[in-house]
Amino acid sequence: MSVSVFDHPWLGGLFGDADMAAILAPERQMTHMLAFEAAWSRACGKAGLFEPAAAETAARAIESADIDLADIAAGMGQDGVPVPRLVKQLKSIAPPEAVHKGATSQDVVDTAMVLMLREASDLIAARLGALDAAFGELDARFGDTPLMGRTRMQAATEMTVRDRLLAWRLPLSEHLARLDQIRERTERVQIGGASGDRKALGDSAEAVVADAAAALGLAPTGKAWHAMRDGVAEYAGLLSLVTGTLGKFGQDVALMAQQGIEEVALSGGGGSSAMPHKQNPVSAELLITLARFNAVQVSAMHHALVHEQERSGTSWALEWMVLPQMLMTTGRALAVALDMSQRITRIGSA
Amino acid sequence: MSVSVFDHPWLGGLFGDADMAAILAPERQMTHMLAFEAAWSRACGKAGLFEPAAAETAARAIESADIDLADIAAGMGQDGVPVPRLVKQLKSIAPPEAVHKGATSQDVVDTAMVLMLREASDLIAARLGALDAAFGELDARFGDTPLMGRTRMQAATEMTVRDRLLAWRLPLSEHLARLDQIRERTERVQIGGASGDRKALGDSAEAVVADAAAALGLAPTGKAWHAMRDGVAEYAGLLSLVTGTLGKFGQDVALMAQQGIEEVALSGGGGSSAMPHKQNPVSAELLITLARFNAVQVSAMHHALVHEQERSGTSWALEWMVLPQMLMTTGRALAVALDMSQRITRIGSA
Amino acid sequence: MSVSVFDHPWLGGLFGDADMAAILAPERQMTHMLAFEAAWSRACGKAGLFEPAAAETAARAIESADIDLADIAAGMGQDGVPVPRLVKQLKSIAPPEAVHKGATSQDVVDTAMVLMLREASDLIAARLGALDAAFGELDARFGDTPLMGRTRMQAATEMTVRDRLLAWRLPLSEHLARLDQIRERTERVQIGGASGDRKALGDSAEAVVADAAAALGLAPTGKAWHAMRDGVAEYAGLLSLVTGTLGKFGQDVALMAQQGIEEVALSGGGGSSAMPHKQNPVSAELLITLARFNAVQVSAMHHALVHEQERSGTSWALEWMVLPQMLMTTGRALAVALDMSQRITRIGSA
Amino acid sequence: MSVSVFDHPWLGGLFGDADMAAILAPERQMTHMLAFEAAWSRACGKAGLFEPAAAETAARAIESADIDLADIAAGMGQDGVPVPRLVKQLKSIAPPEAVHKGATSQDVVDTAMVLMLREASDLIAARLGALDAAFGELDARFGDTPLMGRTRMQAATEMTVRDRLLAWRLPLSEHLARLDQIRERTERVQIGGASGDRKALGDSAEAVVADAAAALGLAPTGKAWHAMRDGVAEYAGLLSLVTGTLGKFGQDVALMAQQGIEEVALSGGGGSSAMPHKQNPVSAELLITLARFNAVQVSAMHHALVHEQERSGTSWALEWMVLPQMLMTTGRALAVALDMSQRITRIGSA
Repeated sequence: MSVSVFDHPWLGGLFGDADMAAILAPERQMTHMLAFEAAWSRACGKAGLFEPAAAETAARAIESADIDLADIAAGMGQDGVPVPRLVKQLKSIAPPEAVHKGATSQDVVDTAMVLMLREASDLIAARLGALDAAFGELDARFGDTPLMGRTRMQAATEMTVRDRLLAWRLPLSEHLARLDQIRERTERVQIGGASGDRKALGDSAEAVVADAAAALGLAPTGKAWHAMRDGVAEYAGLLSLVTGTLGKFGQDVALMAQQGIEEVALSGGGGSSAMPHKQNPVSAELLITLARFNAVQVSAMHHALVHEQERSGTSWALEWMVLPQMLMTTGRALAVALDMSQRITRIGSA
Repeated sequence: MSVSVFDHPWLGGLFGDADMAAILAPERQMTHMLAFEAAWSRACGKAGLFEPAAAETAARAIESADIDLADIAAGMGQDGVPVPRLVKQLKSIAPPEAVHKGATSQDVVDTAMVLMLREASDLIAARLGALDAAFGELDARFGDTPLMGRTRMQAATEMTVRDRLLAWRLPLSEHLARLDQIRERTERVQIGGASGDRKALGDSAEAVVADAAAALGLAPTGKAWHAMRDGVAEYAGLLSLVTGTLGKFGQDVALMAQQGIEEVALSGGGGSSAMPHKQNPVSAELLITLARFNAVQVSAMHHALVHEQERSGTSWALEWMVLPQMLMTTGRALAVALDMSQRITRIGSA
Repeated sequence: MSVSVFDHPWLGGLFGDADMAAILAPERQMTHMLAFEAAWSRACGKAGLFEPAAAETAARAIESADIDLADIAAGMGQDGVPVPRLVKQLKSIAPPEAVHKGATSQDVVDTAMVLMLREASDLIAARLGALDAAFGELDARFGDTPLMGRTRMQAATEMTVRDRLLAWRLPLSEHLARLDQIRERTERVQIGGASGDRKALGDSAEAVVADAAAALGLAPTGKAWHAMRDGVAEYAGLLSLVTGTLGKFGQDVALMAQQGIEEVALSGGGGSSAMPHKQNPVSAELLITLARFNAVQVSAMHHALVHEQERSGTSWALEWMVLPQMLMTTGRALAVALDMSQRITRIGSA
Repeated sequence: MSVSVFDHPWLGGLFGDADMAAILAPERQMTHMLAFEAAWSRACGKAGLFEPAAAETAARAIESADIDLADIAAGMGQDGVPVPRLVKQLKSIAPPEAVHKGATSQDVVDTAMVLMLREASDLIAARLGALDAAFGELDARFGDTPLMGRTRMQAATEMTVRDRLLAWRLPLSEHLARLDQIRERTERVQIGGASGDRKALGDSAEAVVADAAAALGLAPTGKAWHAMRDGVAEYAGLLSLVTGTLGKFGQDVALMAQQGIEEVALSGGGGSSAMPHKQNPVSAELLITLARFNAVQVSAMHHALVHEQERSGTSWALEWMVLPQMLMTTGRALAVALDMSQRITRIGSA
């Protein structure tokens, strides 16, 4: 059983998100890696770098390969990357001369990451939209209700629920705009070969990159980006901007739900083992936790920008430790925020 | 399959640590929680707060309870803590009037955490000792070998391997001294009840605390510490001090292993999918990664010190997300450092 | 004398940046705050909220006001913001009924921050462009020179200097594109009044906002953004992306400058008090330091997203502690990178 | 004028701390560096490494030296450390053969840092003690007053003010205990010479270290510790533990001061430019800000543990950027907490 809160047998009930977990699942990562290898074989076949029939045979074998994960795991400890063992397995089931040749680990792993980010971005965009709509419904129901404005934790002047709601809602469309801009910068195939210079592809480099990118639905690139991590770090930053906005929502609701304030009522609050009468604003607190978690993790992704030379095993592995957790956190926060917004049964000064 | 690198089907081959994973395993956490509940029933029975026979019956039922984890998970999403559902299950298999009464969630969860930290501390201490011994062996074999001292990434003056080794080794005994001091501050039972004032225990508070603590092998406390998180934050800081020391070891070895420098040789380096001749210093890089990971996470544990009122669902949950990962990271780093130190076949200027 | 490395009497020689310091200087901040207050008086005068002649008189008095900073400082300790004392001073030199009325602290301070960011963005954009050009010159001189590609700190396959250079250079144009996008999201006037609802402006709100924004050269806004900090957090993220890219440049140069590697030569390296013969790659190391500093600070700016209610004194003050330092760090890193790129006298495998 | 909040002409009114600023002042740092150089000359003179009379002459000249800071600053940009220029200046006013020889930059700068930490520790210890006493007085006055216990931001069960007070107060004595333990590990002279091996001292090394340490009131060391940063990182961790405890105090007070809760009254709250009637809990908010600032910065100090080889210009400079700010933050937080505790005029449920 996992120590991770996202997969933990009972903590997973608080932190888990099935949709995002499916996107990040190892089996899905493997599917993406195999998709790259198949696209690679076909693109090299088309370019004449691999014998075309063997390339197609290899691509089909790769697509339906049944990978021995324990063998990959054993290789990780020695190689630091899954690709050497993966390629070895693939070569045992496909024409070896039409497998992986000219590519390298970062091509497989980073392109697979991009394919994963693309699916995650779709989920995040859909949830941002749904939350925006839910806040719109709250606005329609409660927007004109008076609410005490509060600055520096003190009552200031009376305003309306709409004024508070807008501070939760308006950043969502900004985040969607950011996501669109960042997707253009990140949904790009990574192809570089050994030192990242595509030398093994010779004059066919542009064609191979274009074909592989097209097969995977990604943008082609004029240069391998594996040692330039600004795209993935920027993406991580957006995740934390999203959870930060939701953390403000959670913080406000937790403050509004206090006895003596009572500016919000939620259906379905949490219980206490010692005080059954209590209605704990568990969702609101969780949104703050998730915001602070991502606000910490974003630092790691920025440290990983110091990616030495043509491949930093150090910085790369740091991303592996952190990025999936940031995605899980963001997915969960969006789901919790949507749920909580729909459980608001009353909002505004009494 | 888990998205966590520590449990991941193939990344686990690089990041996993079976010994630490066993200590942090959910089933072990549950064992600790049940140990608390059993000790609680017995201590309250002895103090006359529970009927003594019922208390003993309850304690025995609790110790052998078969917990429905899916039910606990379902409760997490609503309650934010596992204890309400856990207590409900326990009351269905034991005299309910002799179960949990007077205690609350943080008593169970935080005391279980302390029991977990105790086992982790034993493992960490043993590994610190083993690594110190391994460095001692390196010193015995290679200590007098000349080595170019390097400052600011530039050759400075010739020194010996011993000089470099001491910078890796001396902090280990400091860490052991720190661990001893911190264990005294953390291996303490957490007992507070509803708002942490032990009011439900009346005049029996001191006796109940002493008995429960003794049964669990922990120090008694004059006051519940659940809203004072300096102990656990300090502990997290020590974990990062340890991985920082090992990160320096890794950084030095990675630099020493460069072509053109070649001040170290390791048996069993990592392979490359594109360049089979390469010997990648995977372990050395991993030590740096693990150091930077913990250096980021320690920030989260310090944010969790801002633990409002008598219990912060927000700060508490942040610890749950981070502390187990810091422990896994530290355990793994110690194992990797020990292994790498034993794979050094040559060290010193050629 | 200041403890800050940016202003320190001798550390300032390493960390200081006169151009960015001028943009961030307190006197310049005060100029921006007064610019807001003058624009406010005029916009309210035009809208008929203030008597027009008094408004113009006030605006002129404000623009030429000689502010008693010690008095503002004394107010900070009590009020937590400079504005109450500032307004009091302004009212003593201008028609008080035509000063600040309808505005509040965040309008003044946040709009002034935006005016400061605008100037900082101009400087950063200019330096990104200059660095891009400098890398272009390096490419023209040395691009075709062979260079050993290095992955995981090990020699991989030979490539060219151009391949390494592109990894330093290509992110710069991405950063410029990001900057353009972020400027659109941040160069917006902040106007909200007491609780941020512009209630005091009544039907004139849109006109006042439009006029004040136009006078300051900022975009108008439909809603006060002071409790939505995603814009400023995103800006901080970009600063760290920039320094991260430069940190990679620094890390690569530091590695290339090692004895036994010697893939780069720089004019004007640093000296040692003990070893006068040494040429320390001080600039390269500094770029890494600055990257790691910003990678840490970005976390604080993301924590500040959890900005409760209509104004969080807590989160706001955290930004004040961190954002100016991130700007100084970025300005300095760009200057150091440009200087270092121009001191490269040789690059490539010998 | 400085961009740093600690020295800023008006923000300094909120963030500044004159006592800690005096300890960290550049002129005081210079005094410590000169103290090291003087002790060094004398210790080497006593050991016969320098001619004794010249050594004493040099020591006296060093102690009364008037240093040209602009020259040192000019050297920083090139050397990355102040020591080469400092030594050059000293050699111009003292017998050059009896100045600095056998020492190196880190010996001067790190020993000076330790002397600074010693003074900071005295201040922190005194303030921890004063705050503990102030809480004791609050306890004496209000300890028995009923106060609603609050868990997860919800009213739980009634307890007393003492219960809340203890959560603020008890960690203070833990921090004092930690400080004592850490002082033993940090108040140690740093002496290593060029590569840190004390080779230049020959057989006199132990005597020179003992004499220099004694002259400075520090513990001698068997080995230079300049590449082992666990002591300084641990110290930084303690600073953040202290501010974290005070942040909890601030957070609790900010929550208690809300309208509708009103569990605390403070004399002398902050004003608003828009709402003169408001009493903002500026001090309480500031304590949270300072806690979060240090919780972020501690991460940088842990990254600096990855201190490559015999001296990392990168990691070392990162400490310079961060540690003084953490000390200022801690000093200020202690002063604010003490002041706020003394301004509590009522505490407890109404």
